[in-house]
Amino acid sequence: MASQEIEALSSALARLPGLGPRSARRAVLWLVKNREGALPALLEALDAVSQQLVECEICGNVDTADPCGICSDPKRDARQLCVVEDVSDVWALDRARLFRGRYHVLGGRLSALDGVGPDDLNIASLMDRVAGGAVDEVVLAMNATLEGQTTAHYLAERLESHPLRITQLAHGLPVGGELDYLDEGTLAQALRARRPVE
Amino acid sequence: MASQEIEALSSALARLPGLGPRSARRAVLWLVKNREGALPALLEALDAVSQQLVECEICGNVDTADPCGICSDPKRDARQLCVVEDVSDVWALDRARLFRGRYHVLGGRLSALDGVGPDDLNIASLMDRVAGGAVDEVVLAMNATLEGQTTAHYLAERLESHPLRITQLAHGLPVGGELDYLDEGTLAQALRARRPVE
Repeated sequence: MASQEIEALSSALARLPGLGPRSARRAVLWLVKNREGALPALLEALDAVSQQLVECEICGNVDTADPCGICSDPKRDARQLCVVEDVSDVWALDRARLFRGRYHVLGGRLSALDGVGPDDLNIASLMDRVAGGAVDEVVLAMNATLEGQTTAHYLAERLESHPLRITQLAHGLPVGGELDYLDEGTLAQALRARRPVE
Repeated sequence: MASQEIEALSSALARLPGLGPRSARRAVLWLVKNREGALPALLEALDAVSQQLVECEICGNVDTADPCGICSDPKRDARQLCVVEDVSDVWALDRARLFRGRYHVLGGRLSALDGVGPDDLNIASLMDRVAGGAVDEVVLAMNATLEGQTTAHYLAERLESHPLRITQLAHGLPVGGELDYLDEGTLAQALRARRPVE
């Protein structure tokens, strides 16, 4: 029904998470209707990002500058290093605006199943950063999955010989979580890590 | 948190129907992760559409060619003309693959409230097409809204003097519609237009 170009745009949009074939078609139609305003704006934004995206050589974050905005921010505490699996984790943690240190992106997690070993992750560069002696604390912020926790354990062992504090994110009830709906693993962690009431 | 360019892309995507700020951010992240494959593909598709979108001078449809794919398709019956309010209606009707004639896009509906009069719509070009005498039937496929039906009535009156069949879409129960859940207007139309069982 529509031209080849319009169909191609529809398929390209349908690949985005959160959009299916139907909503992609609606989005294309909306872009066609707004071809004077929103379409060139989206094109320009996409083009700018596409041309400038680069992986930060220091931390592995992806940004439009190298070093990335976080690594080059002088207000951030270089003595605190938060190690995460993926770029998305940097964004998620930084949205909370609580951690004011810097990050290190591993680019994945150790996984025997997927054949991902230590050499496949940005671990050597993490060791280099730590070896410089400019880091006081490493926060291991892996996902609370089996593979994430395996990776955290491995890193903790590798980091042990350095004079720094190694911490990990607390496990327990998520905010708003109802006991009735939580899995046994979470409840067990929450109970084990119980704290005196302040 | 992210660079200005990434934020700009996020806002541009968030304007698409079906995507909000959160899902736009997820989409950006996904694009960042797939910056080798999906990102350039989307950019290219968007660029192609953006450069080639043009309004068909004959029918008002938006396509990447002028005349549009429908107007230039020799397999389509030029003697049947389906008049619709918007480009989206062409796409919706053509998806059903039942109508094999051509279209005419008004570019809106008559609306006293919004100050849209006959001169604001592509009515003059419709009259020209019909005046040529090459059209046997005009299907008035306006929306079943008050303004859509007002527009249909107006067009029917304007077209009356020409020797052609003027039809409109049937009103009644939608496929899968349950009486219990339908509004009284639809039920009244369905009852009024009842047909003998074949």
